[in-house]
Amino acid sequence: MTKRPASVRLTDDQRFDWLRLIRSENVGPRTFLALMGKFGAAGAALDALPELARRGGASRPIRVASVEEVEREIALAQKIGVRFIALGEPGYPPALRQIDSAPPVLALRGREEALQQPAVAIVGARNASAAGLTFADRLARGLGQAGYVVVSGLARGIDQRAHFAALETGTIGVLAGGCARPYPPEAVALLPRIAEFGAIVSEMPIEWEPRGRDFPRRNRLVSGLALGTTVIEAARGSGSLITARFAAEQNREVFAAPGSPLDPRAEGTNDLLRQGANLCARVEDVLAVLDPIRARDPFSRFEEAARDRSEPAWDERTLFGVDPDEAPLARADDEGDEASTRDVRLEADSQAARRRIEALLGPAPVSIDDLARAAEVSVREIRTALIELELAGRVEYQGGDRVALVAPSAED
Amino acid sequence: MTKRPASVRLTDDQRFDWLRLIRSENVGPRTFLALMGKFGAAGAALDALPELARRGGASRPIRVASVEEVEREIALAQKIGVRFIALGEPGYPPALRQIDSAPPVLALRGREEALQQPAVAIVGARNASAAGLTFADRLARGLGQAGYVVVSGLARGIDQRAHFAALETGTIGVLAGGCARPYPPEAVALLPRIAEFGAIVSEMPIEWEPRGRDFPRRNRLVSGLALGTTVIEAARGSGSLITARFAAEQNREVFAAPGSPLDPRAEGTNDLLRQGANLCARVEDVLAVLDPIRARDPFSRFEEAARDRSEPAWDERTLFGVDPDEAPLARADDEGDEASTRDVRLEADSQAARRRIEALLGPAPVSIDDLARAAEVSVREIRTALIELELAGRVEYQGGDRVALVAPSAED
Repeated sequence: MTKRPASVRLTDDQRFDWLRLIRSENVGPRTFLALMGKFGAAGAALDALPELARRGGASRPIRVASVEEVEREIALAQKIGVRFIALGEPGYPPALRQIDSAPPVLALRGREEALQQPAVAIVGARNASAAGLTFADRLARGLGQAGYVVVSGLARGIDQRAHFAALETGTIGVLAGGCARPYPPEAVALLPRIAEFGAIVSEMPIEWEPRGRDFPRRNRLVSGLALGTTVIEAARGSGSLITARFAAEQNREVFAAPGSPLDPRAEGTNDLLRQGANLCARVEDVLAVLDPIRARDPFSRFEEAARDRSEPAWDERTLFGVDPDEAPLARADDEGDEASTRDVRLEADSQAARRRIEALLGPAPVSIDDLARAAEVSVREIRTALIELELAGRVEYQGGDRVALVAPSAED
Repeated sequence: MTKRPASVRLTDDQRFDWLRLIRSENVGPRTFLALMGKFGAAGAALDALPELARRGGASRPIRVASVEEVEREIALAQKIGVRFIALGEPGYPPALRQIDSAPPVLALRGREEALQQPAVAIVGARNASAAGLTFADRLARGLGQAGYVVVSGLARGIDQRAHFAALETGTIGVLAGGCARPYPPEAVALLPRIAEFGAIVSEMPIEWEPRGRDFPRRNRLVSGLALGTTVIEAARGSGSLITARFAAEQNREVFAAPGSPLDPRAEGTNDLLRQGANLCARVEDVLAVLDPIRARDPFSRFEEAARDRSEPAWDERTLFGVDPDEAPLARADDEGDEASTRDVRLEADSQAARRRIEALLGPAPVSIDDLARAAEVSVREIRTALIELELAGRVEYQGGDRVALVAPSAED
């Protein structure tokens, strides 16, 4: 194995390959990390994509992002002042790095430093009441003064009011689409002001128009960037509650502002309180919980571990419960006769395992642990099979580490 | 010892003595029970009062309620349709029977059956908002339909609205003064309607005009009558929070309606939620907690134990942690030379113990346990000393089982 230099920033070529890989069809954050674990480098994974998807049962060749497409994204990014930070690079937000399905590449407009500060998410109803908006303002100002960056989703109502109140102390807006397609329209005027002391981030291709399903997906980044998420006014079933659920799944704190039993906008937050969320009726309620967590600096130690790799760390333990180095599969830089023979044997094993796994999957999501137990396969086998099935567009991850068969009707 | 008939109702003579004893100066519910434990009967305790108060250091003779005074109270009660139920009699509310300082005698106007049903207290702000009043109405109706009697304090705002909404399913109003001095004035018209299917109760002499300090004292009965107390809108420091504190001390459930962080009327209830109160934004929130408790019927077993006494049980274990029969003091029906000699010895012991205890007491309340430990006296000694000191008006009980020296300025 080649001795790799102790560097933590990607080279321009590596970053280019990372962007190509994550922009390719059916490559989500988890599959990206699994491919890095299997191939060691994005370039090698890109070469392997067509064959992996074929093995997974893809009905047509997988669409690999073209060199031209990624060149165009990088050119447009430079033009509008957007740069890319890869998972594990020093500029990557340390709290976000720890979530399942952390974006391998984050597009950033604004100040990188804003991503390094402790943050609190404030989210809530678009049709907020005057009292709700006033409270969002008060809370965002107070948290800003206490040294927290305020994260939100740029939506009308509570989100925009929170951003606005935290402009000078620093706020992060997370887009559901690409940086060149900001949404909603009334947030556009706010963006340069946010970028002045804070940041706008997106995991999507720079020209991506956000669709409905992109918003819940985006919400995991809102909660993931923060030590805790505060919900102010939320009806039952609203997007803010999805953000709160992500926060809980990510082991972050959840706060909810109480509201009158007669106010439908308080039903969601009152439900959160019933479920054990921290009550938030003043800035101190948040500080009392988060200041001690912030003092422990829970995310910095992971940065240490990243220093010794040529490409940033991708901590596969959070994905499969194993260290990639403990169960090495064939790697691109590991060639030779012996390796080739092993590859053939592994491929045969992998096909049998994949069929068993596929037969066990259905539209209801199951955990990877349960799946491995039911299929009686090793973690290594399930890992390979899931890469192939996901690249073939036949399985998808749903909340946490659960996978489900993609329903045919969902392939729109 | 005389064999006592197995009866549970007081005779008219006993009831008369009970009333005289509890209406006498410095005889609170705890001292009443301690005297019953010491003398076995209210009549014997009445005879002993002057001497006990003298020993306790009273500066002037104790005022023992006169026969005429009690005859007048009973006559007025009959005239206005009020009757008296003694602690331990079958009609006494089983939940109230379990609290520290349960009133030895309860004056009742209305239906005795209402006192036997499972109950929920609903209390809150006098200056309630329209939303708060509407919610009180909705909650009281829902709880009534679910078979709960609604207890409250007859105050303007939330209290009266809760009573009104539960008129037909049954509601209990607890007066801070006597039954012939209903307060507040606007509740007077409500009383006959409450009494029709529910009850008005009071522990005070029938013509007692309520003063400021009687309201918090009354609040322990509001919470004590119920399996749980629900607070709807309460500013910090308001009386409703005292009721909630009593409920918690009595090991009853506490519920609080959430409210906007910007509404001062919600500060108290939001504080309760922070402290772990159950969130109450709909009837089901209360039923989910109380229905299982109600099904266990937690108070009925104490009724069983009361069946074998000629006067109702007073369960001194809740007062001093001992059964009166395990540590008998000289009793009125236990006379003879040997007993007399023992009395003399006990009195000498008691004086020494009382002085040590008095020296240790101050205006800050201390628990009886801590006091016994610091004074290095037995539970029996502290019990006797506290009876004497309380009858002398020199100590008073404060919240739970804590005692304090009465400040001279408080003797108005």
